Amino acid sequence: MTAYVRLDVAGTIATVTLDNPAKMGALSLAAMRELTETFHEVGQRSDVHVVILASVGKVFSAGHDLAEIHGADESTHRELFDVCTQLMLTIQRIPQPVIAKVQGLATAAGCQLVATCDLAIAAETARFATPGVRIGLFCSTPMVAVSRAVGRKMAMRMLLTGEQLSADTALAHGLVSHVVADEDLDTEVVALANQVASASAATVAIGKQAFYEQLDLGTVEAYEKMSEVMTANASLYDAQEGIDAFLEKRDPVWRHDQD
Amino acid sequence: MTAYVRLDVAGTIATVTLDNPAKMGALSLAAMRELTETFHEVGQRSDVHVVILASVGKVFSAGHDLAEIHGADESTHRELFDVCTQLMLTIQRIPQPVIAKVQGLATAAGCQLVATCDLAIAAETARFATPGVRIGLFCSTPMVAVSRAVGRKMAMRMLLTGEQLSADTALAHGLVSHVVADEDLDTEVVALANQVASASAATVAIGKQAFYEQLDLGTVEAYEKMSEVMTANASLYDAQEGIDAFLEKRDPVWRHDQD
Amino acid sequence: MTAYVRLDVAGTIATVTLDNPAKMGALSLAAMRELTETFHEVGQRSDVHVVILASVGKVFSAGHDLAEIHGADESTHRELFDVCTQLMLTIQRIPQPVIAKVQGLATAAGCQLVATCDLAIAAETARFATPGVRIGLFCSTPMVAVSRAVGRKMAMRMLLTGEQLSADTALAHGLVSHVVADEDLDTEVVALANQVASASAATVAIGKQAFYEQLDLGTVEAYEKMSEVMTANASLYDAQEGIDAFLEKRDPVWRHDQD
Repeated sequence: MTAYVRLDVAGTIATVTLDNPAKMGALSLAAMRELTETFHEVGQRSDVHVVILASVGKVFSAGHDLAEIHGADESTHRELFDVCTQLMLTIQRIPQPVIAKVQGLATAAGCQLVATCDLAIAAETARFATPGVRIGLFCSTPMVAVSRAVGRKMAMRMLLTGEQLSADTALAHGLVSHVVADEDLDTEVVALANQVASASAATVAIGKQAFYEQLDLGTVEAYEKMSEVMTANASLYDAQEGIDAFLEKRDPVWRHDQD
Repeated sequence: MTAYVRLDVAGTIATVTLDNPAKMGALSLAAMRELTETFHEVGQRSDVHVVILASVGKVFSAGHDLAEIHGADESTHRELFDVCTQLMLTIQRIPQPVIAKVQGLATAAGCQLVATCDLAIAAETARFATPGVRIGLFCSTPMVAVSRAVGRKMAMRMLLTGEQLSADTALAHGLVSHVVADEDLDTEVVALANQVASASAATVAIGKQAFYEQLDLGTVEAYEKMSEVMTANASLYDAQEGIDAFLEKRDPVWRHDQD
Repeated sequence: MTAYVRLDVAGTIATVTLDNPAKMGALSLAAMRELTETFHEVGQRSDVHVVILASVGKVFSAGHDLAEIHGADESTHRELFDVCTQLMLTIQRIPQPVIAKVQGLATAAGCQLVATCDLAIAAETARFATPGVRIGLFCSTPMVAVSRAVGRKMAMRMLLTGEQLSADTALAHGLVSHVVADEDLDTEVVALANQVASASAATVAIGKQAFYEQLDLGTVEAYEKMSEVMTANASLYDAQEGIDAFLEKRDPVWRHDQD
């Protein structure tokens, strides 16, 4: 549909594919804008219940297109990082969970993408790094996402050395949620997406929004907000149907499945 | 003492037992109120230095009693989640450390209980889940506790898939503090409780309150508060006695042991 | 240079050595003041790009000098904890990354030092503990650093039991960033320091300051600040040179290497 991004919807699963293998999945200004636009579009589609973020080629994403940073003026730099931030916030703000499907390498803003998605399933040979320090450009915006996913010491290790973490290390320290054999990546991401999509989309949307809202609050304030969220959720048709089905030992039929 | 909760005190160790095996340790409104009341009562007893939270039956707790949510009106829902929040906050606010002793399964608000306790010792076959999404009711209040114990990606994996974590995975990601062989659970929880109870209760009370206070603060403000806390603690009889004993290579005799 | 602290600079690597083996690396008031002063001095030296914090003897540091706490009055206690806090904040505020090099044992304020440094490389036999509870003095200031490095449950396990964590457990839970064989500790810390020092010092200084600033902010505010930081960083000579070199497949020559 656009120069660098494809959108495919199969049933309730949308796949947003970054298609820029010649530039190792570079997040050029154009690519970031197309991704943001595509996520906005998907976010408004009630037929889509879960989104897979995939990338074509050997590498998931090598981050910003350095040719765009090199020699550019301050306003261009600011625009690049602002557009990047909008992409990350959009992923967290759309109602559907977004699953990063990671092969090869995810570095700098590419690693930030992985840290930002709600779930991330990695091929066992995938690698993760924030190596900006090596080219004089510290990964300061990527670290917002990375340091909220992994602990401080491992985040600093990544940021100060630029070294690549293995998929297993990324899982152990919280950067990804799943690791699978390379040859199973295609099937496992679909299985995971189907599992997530089998839930009530209305319920998932409430929960995803609430998750990020409460993380930035103190404990008492978080509980106050979440008690309201649970109360609103409990009165939904899907919650009453879900509990009905559970008590009657049958599968629930969500409202969106009745349309 | 009440319909669903027993309180047993042996020496300085109190055991609060949820006794509702027919309903898989359900946190009904009555059970939550009795637990909260019991923790309040225990919190005021200076002879109790540590609390074990146990549950009768094959399952630690399956969370809310769904029959109470199903078909209820909004004010009942709000009451349920508010009472649940009060239970969690009470556990963190009483002066004594609370150790969850977990067998079988801890799900939804039952998993929240585990995440909320100061320590949690799990049998190696225990499982942990926040599966509300499967019945249309996202675990939004449990996630306040769960997402403050485990990383974001693992929290989202639990919340979006509802899958069960093993005890070892729960330990690796911070949901529990200890895992032991099933047959050792009874003895190990008592050993842990005795270890914690061997400290000065006055010191532990200061430390527990300070721990949760400083977690919600920025680093500089946290240090300001904790310097005050350490200063107050250092002037306690028990601190001076503890340092005395350490320097003299003997066991300390805390003030509460002299009464 | 002072009674308890040595400063050695070799090339761009400074080593700050706590030299108080007779007292197991005790952080006496004098030692903490000398450390703080030395870190301030190092922080102002543009020829220093990375700092190693080492300690002489079998033990990295056993924390405060208990003889100074014992029998002292409130104002002395306050002074001790305030000076300790200043040491910790100074380590995080100087522009250069600080790597703790840990052998033997790091306990109480010694463990806090490890948790505070940007990176920490531990010998595989090193042990870590916050055992203040055993002497009646809860590790309330150490826990500010420890609970921001490891998860809540493991922090509480350390604080309430005082037990020693192995280096591997410390790595798995985020208290240290690296573990190496004992016999490799000397060479590995230098290799790590050289790796960090090979980057642009100007870039690293920006990144280190930004890291701690954004951790205490909500996500949206963190992104706003970090977009500004990235924009400022991108206009630096070293960023343009670094990208140049990367695109030309050559090694970068940082500004500080041209002087």
